[in-house]
Amino acid sequence: MNEHFTIALDAMGGDHGAEVVVPAAVKALDRYPDVHLILVGDEATIREYLQAHKTRADDSRLRIRHATQVVGMDEPPAQALRSKKDSSMRVAINLVKDGTAHACVSAGNTGALMATARYVLKTLPGIDRPAIATSIPSIRGHTLVLDLGANVDCTAEHLYQFALMGSILASAVDANPNPRVGLLNVGEEDIKGNDQVKEAARMMESGVLNYIGFVEGDDIFCGDVDVVVCDGFVGNVALKTSEGVARMVSHFVRAEFKRNLLTRLAGLCALPVLNAFRKRIDPRLYNGASLLGLQGIVIKSHGGVDAFAFENAIRIARLEAEKGVPQRIDKQLERVLSERKVG
Amino acid sequence: MNEHFTIALDAMGGDHGAEVVVPAAVKALDRYPDVHLILVGDEATIREYLQAHKTRADDSRLRIRHATQVVGMDEPPAQALRSKKDSSMRVAINLVKDGTAHACVSAGNTGALMATARYVLKTLPGIDRPAIATSIPSIRGHTLVLDLGANVDCTAEHLYQFALMGSILASAVDANPNPRVGLLNVGEEDIKGNDQVKEAARMMESGVLNYIGFVEGDDIFCGDVDVVVCDGFVGNVALKTSEGVARMVSHFVRAEFKRNLLTRLAGLCALPVLNAFRKRIDPRLYNGASLLGLQGIVIKSHGGVDAFAFENAIRIARLEAEKGVPQRIDKQLERVLSERKVG
Repeated sequence: MNEHFTIALDAMGGDHGAEVVVPAAVKALDRYPDVHLILVGDEATIREYLQAHKTRADDSRLRIRHATQVVGMDEPPAQALRSKKDSSMRVAINLVKDGTAHACVSAGNTGALMATARYVLKTLPGIDRPAIATSIPSIRGHTLVLDLGANVDCTAEHLYQFALMGSILASAVDANPNPRVGLLNVGEEDIKGNDQVKEAARMMESGVLNYIGFVEGDDIFCGDVDVVVCDGFVGNVALKTSEGVARMVSHFVRAEFKRNLLTRLAGLCALPVLNAFRKRIDPRLYNGASLLGLQGIVIKSHGGVDAFAFENAIRIARLEAEKGVPQRIDKQLERVLSERKVG
Repeated sequence: MNEHFTIALDAMGGDHGAEVVVPAAVKALDRYPDVHLILVGDEATIREYLQAHKTRADDSRLRIRHATQVVGMDEPPAQALRSKKDSSMRVAINLVKDGTAHACVSAGNTGALMATARYVLKTLPGIDRPAIATSIPSIRGHTLVLDLGANVDCTAEHLYQFALMGSILASAVDANPNPRVGLLNVGEEDIKGNDQVKEAARMMESGVLNYIGFVEGDDIFCGDVDVVVCDGFVGNVALKTSEGVARMVSHFVRAEFKRNLLTRLAGLCALPVLNAFRKRIDPRLYNGASLLGLQGIVIKSHGGVDAFAFENAIRIARLEAEKGVPQRIDKQLERVLSERKVG
């Protein structure tokens, strides 16, 4: 078996562009012998950073694809779509479209990435809207949450499609044959929630899913559910809220250990333990959100991350390529849709 | 000045009823010399717990009001409203209605409490729906968030009313004359969000509020905004999510310190610091949510809390009575409504 996975990287996207993407690429080539990478962006800039981070990896696994434009982090998606046809982001997605790459990764502007990916790759048959999915740490591992902001207004049908896609993604990448799917709500009783959520619950109960019912915000972190489904507004708020709490907690812990000489000493004693703890919920280990429901793999990295975090997004792209996530979703959808026709 | 504040306590509500409410009442009488309390519920049960927690406080400040029924924690609000006319919850609210008490506190079922309070007390003129508001710790103090679950579908007008009420509450109880009000959204740019949020933003910009624009989930904890407005679905998810993250973090910290003998020793050194930290974000210090927009003060305690936390809900009821929060909201609304008519 000489299977390999080619991943196109938007080398200019994100707050730091090639400064982060190039060293992450070099590390990923070292770590994954079956990965080939295409760095997409301004060739001169990429070469400069490549020289600074001389790769030990086989050069034959690394290519550069020149692109003359860059999508700005605040650029409106429609404008990027219309006037940035040779952007590093667009060209990376084109490489997935034409089959040159199995997947692409970008730390660029989320709205533009979603709009471009949707325009170039198209959604899978039966999917109205792609969703953004990411893993969040939980007490017993991690929980997949979707949607995280692609769709601020969702019908019950959309939520149901998210549930299907999330379940397939979790079963593919976590080797979990029957992921438990929960629907995020404001209470666990049947009478709780808005109309979309109640209707989506009815659809999910009667489907192919291992649907466990309504879950609440704190359930995301308890480890009793594998996939949490919500609309993009709610998911985005939940994700940002959890980041905010984690930041506040670490701020307070630091402040308390810095209070005086005695607490500083205590901090010194506790440092290895606190570092071990920090590693466990290191957000960089969760960097890389999947744009699900497209005819191709697109991974969104956070915009402001370092090379270690960007490398994780490459790892996710590789894993989804290995597992053939879009193909699995397509197959499953076909089954569900044909059952619906029969039913 | 011999001003005093009479607060009616639903002594049977919550997971623990009188077992928690009675000792909390005894402590509150000790702490607040200007507070009078009415314990509402089964007289025999209340007397039993009072004997167990002999109060040092002046008996004349404590009364019992017998009530024969209790609203169950999972009882549908409509059923409680129809068939529990002598419940401890309903009678406590009646005492506010007839002017015997300045405020009431219940740890009972949120839906039943809201429905009963709304039915008995009525909303203030100009308020379509009451909201649930609570303070959440932030890096620089705390942030008031509303709505937290009373309203799962909100129009822009509702969000605007929540903003007005939240701003008045924050200025009254935090002695902050000009609280910064933010609207929770999935991004800070004007183009982000759903229609309700965009329309509410337009209303808030042109109003009397110190409106600072869109905020995201993590901003709740950063201390740069005093009042965060959202619909009840989103607010409930944000609140529960933050509780879940805090629980996960403390779980991981404990697990790391228990790993081996060395880490246990480090934990011993760090214990006073970790305890100081824990005190800073102790959720019990934030127990007590305000049902805003009613013609009277109703405070909802969490259902499962201890006496220390319930006492905090009594503190909040006392503070809102002292500041005359419903009267302030009423006055401000009258001004805003008359300006609208002119405009």
